[in-house]
Amino acid sequence: MPRYAYVNGRYLPHAQAQVHIEDRGYQFADGVYEVILIHEGLFVDEEPHLDRLGYSLDALRIPWPMARPALRLVLGELIARNGVLHGIVYLQVTRGVAARDHKFPARSKPSLVATTKRVKPASAAAAPGGVAVITQPDLRWRRCDIKSVSLLPNILAKQAAAEAGAYEAWLVDGEGCVTEGSSTNAWIVTRGGRLVTRNLSDAILSGITRRSLLQLIQSQNIAVEERRFSVAEVKEAAEAFITSTTSLVLPVTRIDGQTIGDGKPGPLTLKLRDHYLSYLAPPS
Amino acid sequence: MPRYAYVNGRYLPHAQAQVHIEDRGYQFADGVYEVILIHEGLFVDEEPHLDRLGYSLDALRIPWPMARPALRLVLGELIARNGVLHGIVYLQVTRGVAARDHKFPARSKPSLVATTKRVKPASAAAAPGGVAVITQPDLRWRRCDIKSVSLLPNILAKQAAAEAGAYEAWLVDGEGCVTEGSSTNAWIVTRGGRLVTRNLSDAILSGITRRSLLQLIQSQNIAVEERRFSVAEVKEAAEAFITSTTSLVLPVTRIDGQTIGDGKPGPLTLKLRDHYLSYLAPPS
Repeated sequence: MPRYAYVNGRYLPHAQAQVHIEDRGYQFADGVYEVILIHEGLFVDEEPHLDRLGYSLDALRIPWPMARPALRLVLGELIARNGVLHGIVYLQVTRGVAARDHKFPARSKPSLVATTKRVKPASAAAAPGGVAVITQPDLRWRRCDIKSVSLLPNILAKQAAAEAGAYEAWLVDGEGCVTEGSSTNAWIVTRGGRLVTRNLSDAILSGITRRSLLQLIQSQNIAVEERRFSVAEVKEAAEAFITSTTSLVLPVTRIDGQTIGDGKPGPLTLKLRDHYLSYLAPPS
Repeated sequence: MPRYAYVNGRYLPHAQAQVHIEDRGYQFADGVYEVILIHEGLFVDEEPHLDRLGYSLDALRIPWPMARPALRLVLGELIARNGVLHGIVYLQVTRGVAARDHKFPARSKPSLVATTKRVKPASAAAAPGGVAVITQPDLRWRRCDIKSVSLLPNILAKQAAAEAGAYEAWLVDGEGCVTEGSSTNAWIVTRGGRLVTRNLSDAILSGITRRSLLQLIQSQNIAVEERRFSVAEVKEAAEAFITSTTSLVLPVTRIDGQTIGDGKPGPLTLKLRDHYLSYLAPPS
């Protein structure tokens, strides 16, 4: 449990960190969030995360709770107070407190809360064995490009995965294609050696790890296809993996109980994972 | 502003009514709610509302926060403390507080919050002129039968309606059919005199006012069709109206700027409104 949480201007002991019951985040899921990785005490991809926060806020017409430089200071102060060398910071912005009414309140001040969590340093971890995923119908709303706290379908999918002994649920659209995981982006490597991940649209979130990995891939002259891919393609793929702020680049070796490729983390997956870990901790 | 709110066992001054920032209702929209009408100091359709609460809780596998009779006592105590003769009680149940993780926590105690609001007594109000609605694409998730707080698409639609000078947004599915309003059920009366409202499925909420009105209609031997209907049908309809706990039976006379019927509240609509008002306040 972290010592401090940030809540609307104050660094509070975590147990006392509260918001009003009429915060629209609580009554309407009227808010957005980001999770940023902290590596060696530094934020990873802080600017792209704050860019995406701005995109989500704009989409919902929620004002920034404070100027962007001030927000960076708050997040920095919070990780310093909590002594986080390796971990994550979670920040959430909602439209604020107002008497309950669906339409936007005439006046409300956005709420900002932030918490931190320590996690093991990524680069120190051995290359992981592969994880299992299951497929679940994608029941989510049609603006998954907004990183909103409207996450009920995501948690139900994640829970289904957990109960099936899997790490993640890959969500499947009406045409049998994978959109993304419940909290991750999905990738495959075809038997022909093509790297594939779903193209950006309102059907998926533009993952920051996805984005950074695509940039690394480009610099390595590895070919990649951003397009839809079916569950059938996954089952015939040579390799598969997921990306996210906390999962980094994580091999997937089973889907719905069926082995992918030879059932071991694939060579391209492990190579990309190494590239990403080097990106996190550049040789000094 | 009501004097008291109920929060997890305590009747608190409204301004001090808070929940923890890691309540899963705040971080994941992992909760459900009900709005119950209070008429002459009595709950209207309390049992169907609590039945539906149970349905929503079961669907999400959230335990009841307390036994049903105890919940009735809490709600009764709250309206007594707030002196509400005519109004609503809002109650929200979430999965409770837990360190942020998508999957269900191993242990968490459901949160229960409740607030009240006074409104003008329905039966005293003159029969209203008709309201305008606009249509909006139905962007919601695919389990709208669960009354969850995952209401972000609903508030965006309601806001669009407000900005267009309309009272409500009717949501339209991929086939051009109306599902329901952003916080109401939708009804039409065809030029042939047929009363039509969307059939129950996971595409709409089973409205309690809808339900009670259907029972009244049955007892009056008025024919009703529960089926999908298109926006084109609405534009050619003789009458239209919406139902909800707070709107009761409310005539709709315009859709997307186009007059419905003769542009006045229709005779069947007003008859059904009268029936519903008599149901609220039976002659003593």
